Amino acid sequence: MSESENKNAEPTVSEAVIGRLPRYYRCLQELLAQNILRISSAELSQMMGVTASQIRQDLNCFGGFGQQGYGYNVKYLCSKIGEILGADEAYSAIVIGAGYLGRALAEPGLFLTRGVFLKAVFDTDPACTEEGERNGIPVYPISKLDRYFAENKADIAVLSLPEIKPAFLDRLSALGIRGIWNFSDAEIPAKPGLAVQNVCPGDLLMKLCYGLRVADEQSRRKYEANRERRGNIKDEN
Amino acid sequence: MSESENKNAEPTVSEAVIGRLPRYYRCLQELLAQNILRISSAELSQMMGVTASQIRQDLNCFGGFGQQGYGYNVKYLCSKIGEILGADEAYSAIVIGAGYLGRALAEPGLFLTRGVFLKAVFDTDPACTEEGERNGIPVYPISKLDRYFAENKADIAVLSLPEIKPAFLDRLSALGIRGIWNFSDAEIPAKPGLAVQNVCPGDLLMKLCYGLRVADEQSRRKYEANRERRGNIKDEN
Repeated sequence: MSESENKNAEPTVSEAVIGRLPRYYRCLQELLAQNILRISSAELSQMMGVTASQIRQDLNCFGGFGQQGYGYNVKYLCSKIGEILGADEAYSAIVIGAGYLGRALAEPGLFLTRGVFLKAVFDTDPACTEEGERNGIPVYPISKLDRYFAENKADIAVLSLPEIKPAFLDRLSALGIRGIWNFSDAEIPAKPGLAVQNVCPGDLLMKLCYGLRVADEQSRRKYEANRERRGNIKDEN
Repeated sequence: MSESENKNAEPTVSEAVIGRLPRYYRCLQELLAQNILRISSAELSQMMGVTASQIRQDLNCFGGFGQQGYGYNVKYLCSKIGEILGADEAYSAIVIGAGYLGRALAEPGLFLTRGVFLKAVFDTDPACTEEGERNGIPVYPISKLDRYFAENKADIAVLSLPEIKPAFLDRLSALGIRGIWNFSDAEIPAKPGLAVQNVCPGDLLMKLCYGLRVADEQSRRKYEANRERRGNIKDEN
């Protein structure tokens, strides 16, 4: 892709399309694992639960990768989507906060399958004064953060801390961190040169509750409509 | 809200708006905790990192709650958004899978602050044969799931399992579960009467990597443009 094409194409891609790309990537990797090398947009649609026209539209944002009546080359499409998502950039990450959530995130599979190299975990527990390791990944006390970065680099900091102070974010930026995966309740704003993915688990739970309430409402309405219909039939008889 | 209004209003609300509602709710709860009872859309905008016109537009989807030149009543707005999100439905939940992620999710604060009552945790580890409790929440072996539901009810199942079989989902539905908060890599499709929130952590990591790659690209372009400009200035001299 030439730079001018790149300039024109990328900013027009919506948040919703970007949100679906990792799902395509996951789906295509599964297909590759099953040695399926070609797939139609109709088949991909069924796997993804997204309409075939949506898939074509999504992939057209990046120039389209299919051939009319021939479908998609799974390997090529997977590598192209991986490229768009930065999976081949070999980014590296550290996890800060080794509570239950930090430990869950630091499972090696999560990062490796997305092309990210998890280099170290930092424990904020002051009781953790010794260097250790978990699943082959070194665990350091947070007090050694600066010393670690004197000899190492990382692109991404995964923050599984209950609270994050602005000064701490500045410190991470000064250490060269350019991506923040934030699991605290406090929103961290993205800014030029700093990519942020805020994941507030409570927000996700509330979205589910919304879905549940709407589903309940629909069931209730359907039930009432049926009752009314039955009532009408009775009246007619 | 009358039923016909409800019918007309709810289906038009986009995924993006729903996604922002929990953030509004969180923000407004923070304001209430600080005893701030009135806020302008401009102030709310600054707190949220969303434009004021976006806020007005979002809240208009639900009929709008502000008064021109007077701002929003924080308590009223918070309770209204809570209502839309189902926070006052007193939904109840169980967590299935008590690994690190399950334990992180089962922290009592996460559920309680969103109006959801976490009733029990089920551990899939066959070694867990005894009933126990963590943070006051009972922990049972998964083998006691049916026996538990013979005497209890729950609306939401939080699945922190690596793999989920369709038969297990059918079993949960039969037990009365109507909401699934799924943390496995496998997408669970929503269907009438079943609300699903799929949270694939790896997908979120990939979205961050995308943001990082785009940010890096922008920095690189800016650097190159500056270098070119400096080159031109040199040439002119």
